Amino acid sequence: MTQERWISLTEWPLAVVGVVFITAYAVEVLDEPVGVNERLLELTIWASWAAFVVDYLIRLVLSTNRTRWFVRHLPELLIVALPVLRPLRLLRLLAVLAVLHRVTGRAIRGRVLMFTVVTVLVLIFVASLAILDTEREQADATIQTFGDALWWSITTITTIGYGDYSPTTLTGRFIAVGLMIGGISLIGVVTATIATWIVERVNEEDEANMVATREQINALHSEIRELRADLARGPGTSASADDPGVPVADGPTP
Amino acid sequence: MTQERWISLTEWPLAVVGVVFITAYAVEVLDEPVGVNERLLELTIWASWAAFVVDYLIRLVLSTNRTRWFVRHLPELLIVALPVLRPLRLLRLLAVLAVLHRVTGRAIRGRVLMFTVVTVLVLIFVASLAILDTEREQADATIQTFGDALWWSITTITTIGYGDYSPTTLTGRFIAVGLMIGGISLIGVVTATIATWIVERVNEEDEANMVATREQINALHSEIRELRADLARGPGTSASADDPGVPVADGPTP
Amino acid sequence: MTQERWISLTEWPLAVVGVVFITAYAVEVLDEPVGVNERLLELTIWASWAAFVVDYLIRLVLSTNRTRWFVRHLPELLIVALPVLRPLRLLRLLAVLAVLHRVTGRAIRGRVLMFTVVTVLVLIFVASLAILDTEREQADATIQTFGDALWWSITTITTIGYGDYSPTTLTGRFIAVGLMIGGISLIGVVTATIATWIVERVNEEDEANMVATREQINALHSEIRELRADLARGPGTSASADDPGVPVADGPTP
Amino acid sequence: MTQERWISLTEWPLAVVGVVFITAYAVEVLDEPVGVNERLLELTIWASWAAFVVDYLIRLVLSTNRTRWFVRHLPELLIVALPVLRPLRLLRLLAVLAVLHRVTGRAIRGRVLMFTVVTVLVLIFVASLAILDTEREQADATIQTFGDALWWSITTITTIGYGDYSPTTLTGRFIAVGLMIGGISLIGVVTATIATWIVERVNEEDEANMVATREQINALHSEIRELRADLARGPGTSASADDPGVPVADGPTP
Repeated sequence: MTQERWISLTEWPLAVVGVVFITAYAVEVLDEPVGVNERLLELTIWASWAAFVVDYLIRLVLSTNRTRWFVRHLPELLIVALPVLRPLRLLRLLAVLAVLHRVTGRAIRGRVLMFTVVTVLVLIFVASLAILDTEREQADATIQTFGDALWWSITTITTIGYGDYSPTTLTGRFIAVGLMIGGISLIGVVTATIATWIVERVNEEDEANMVATREQINALHSEIRELRADLARGPGTSASADDPGVPVADGPTP
Repeated sequence: MTQERWISLTEWPLAVVGVVFITAYAVEVLDEPVGVNERLLELTIWASWAAFVVDYLIRLVLSTNRTRWFVRHLPELLIVALPVLRPLRLLRLLAVLAVLHRVTGRAIRGRVLMFTVVTVLVLIFVASLAILDTEREQADATIQTFGDALWWSITTITTIGYGDYSPTTLTGRFIAVGLMIGGISLIGVVTATIATWIVERVNEEDEANMVATREQINALHSEIRELRADLARGPGTSASADDPGVPVADGPTP
Repeated sequence: MTQERWISLTEWPLAVVGVVFITAYAVEVLDEPVGVNERLLELTIWASWAAFVVDYLIRLVLSTNRTRWFVRHLPELLIVALPVLRPLRLLRLLAVLAVLHRVTGRAIRGRVLMFTVVTVLVLIFVASLAILDTEREQADATIQTFGDALWWSITTITTIGYGDYSPTTLTGRFIAVGLMIGGISLIGVVTATIATWIVERVNEEDEANMVATREQINALHSEIRELRADLARGPGTSASADDPGVPVADGPTP
Repeated sequence: MTQERWISLTEWPLAVVGVVFITAYAVEVLDEPVGVNERLLELTIWASWAAFVVDYLIRLVLSTNRTRWFVRHLPELLIVALPVLRPLRLLRLLAVLAVLHRVTGRAIRGRVLMFTVVTVLVLIFVASLAILDTEREQADATIQTFGDALWWSITTITTIGYGDYSPTTLTGRFIAVGLMIGGISLIGVVTATIATWIVERVNEEDEANMVATREQINALHSEIRELRADLARGPGTSASADDPGVPVADGPTP
């Protein structure tokens, strides 16, 4: 079996596993179940993680050049390996987002924007769960409810940073750094999308000054090619009836 | 009646309704009238909302493909449907801005900038009214006057976030999220406008290296077409008097 | 006298007046002189303002179409008219910057960057003076020294907003809004400059895929024009000695 | 010896000196050694600085036009000259980064991004060391551990600015300004990279509407040149056998 086949086969199952993982993690953090339920949730979380590890290993084995694949997919290894630390499990979600990226298939700018919006929403949701999980047991922590956590995530990813809530633990700060990177990328994507949109609209308005396209150059090529064909047949052959005075083709008689 | 006709007919009336709505809402929040005046203002606010609902429904009925129109105008449905929650009524204003968008009709970049400036100003004004309306009854709220509310809106939309004022209620935070989205878009539009402006100026300065335009390609086309016409008439026919040494055309002798 | 001549004549004197104004304002705020010195500084400040008013009026009179000039230079009228309010006098500085803009004359991107850097530095300096002037007399103000004021201006224009210092007066908040607008423009200019620089470098590296330029199209034009000239002279005339076997031009003999 | 040869010879040694400098500075700040160790570290730090001064002077001497080189490399002079003030020694690191810049040699956008990521990481690390070195002896300072310093650097460079930590000394604020400039540039680079990436992807999708390239124009040139060569040989010579009805070439009969 080729790697491509494996990827296309596992796309949807992996997305489902990802959603199961987020749901289980959300229930665990927000409901704080005890006894059997807690162990069941933990089991679900670890099982979903195992699924991503197995998927990673199978793709590694199926790749044509394993060393190159390994080097190029180093970030994915980090995503799969890191989650031993509980609150950083959120990074595993990026694997699900990669699946989503492959599924959506419209124009590039719409796709980038949709991908960004979904990433930002998932990032805000999971970061809120993780920061709540990490911070609420701290004595001096300001983030105590899921509402606070959500509000803090949003003010961080938009780079507002009111400072009414801020993480106090090391893990909490790692989560914050992840959100900040997401926030700077978010601003970048929004700006870039608007900039390219403006450039296109400016072009459409000013038809005469639009950039010359390859299609136009190809049209020129075929025109020149026809000209050469005409030339090969010789002058006069393509002359129309309303052009009778052409003296050349009737041969010089002595 | 076609949808286009309806839209062009209702443009200005809807803008007036929008202005009436903002004014009524501003008076209600800032003056806090009681008795008859309060009921009158409430009536005005609900009437203006009804006008937007009716406009939405009529445009839906008049559209050629209703399902497609419905899907494509989903954000507008949200704008019309959401305002059941009082402080979120500000979103209805975006309908007015859409009207404004149709009215202004200059170069694309100027239009985008003007649209952004007006949106930002309206957003700041209405968000300030809404946050004041929501927060001032809270015991631990920091935003108590319209001046505070305005200052908070501005520091939020510019993503500064001093943190001297910040919303404490859920509705207040929803308003804040709206402002943040507006702020990131604002940065995006400003950057994009400057970037496209710089690109154009660079082009104008470096005339020789300007991007080839479609107009130029079209000029090439007509030149090649003339060349083919010349060829069709045969060599020599387009030769001018100051070009006597051409040996070909002396062909046919009588 | 034409308006152009007036502008080129007053460029440098106005820049000097601007520098005199900043210096006088800085001495007044930082030294807080009393008696004769204070009156002398006030006189200098009002005289420099008068110079800008006179320059504005003369340019208005000298313009070919006064109504259009008035409408197009509305922001400049605001700059000249507003400074009745003392701490907003900083806006007058923008007039000096306009002079600076005319003086620098290199490549567009370097010019934009240099203009931005100078504007940002002047804005930070004068905003610091103005906020200190406004805030230090307030009981609950946090900004008490020029160092604090400078630090606050920088954290505001970069949209950081620590919140350790923030204005409490209405005038102080107007100054803050000016800095925020400057900050968003600063981010826009920096991003736009980097973006256009990257696009150019990408083009230079990938020579074959560079965008077709107008110069190249013009070269094509002249080539086609030469082709037509050749055609006019007829085939064979441009044939070289190493091409003797051309049978056409020597006429069919019976 | 030419300047180019000197630069290529000293690339790697200077990078090593840079790493030695950061390590020594980190040990000095974090370990706070006393006695012999402290003097040894101080010696290492001053020696590494001397190496950068010598490199600067040699490149100045070897340059073909010393005045122009001096003016164009003014920022580098600042980097070399400034570090007399201890906590600003971090700026010397930029010299190491310049070396790194010369070493990496892939596509322009990847190179810019990699350069930015490394600069940001080094800037965060050294700014954290410097701010800790400066602030921890202050009575009212909030930054007391390396963890706090790192967290403050990250919230500053991403322009978040929670305000839970902020510098109180003058040197600390200079370091903050350096980080802010780095942060605005970071946002600029990220946005610009995404924008150019989107533009390229849009082009690749819409093959027919791709911008005309110089390669295509060159192909047109050679086609027209062949056409002229055909014309020089005269009509009919390039006619193929499957084109018998051409009346011209039957000219010369024996």
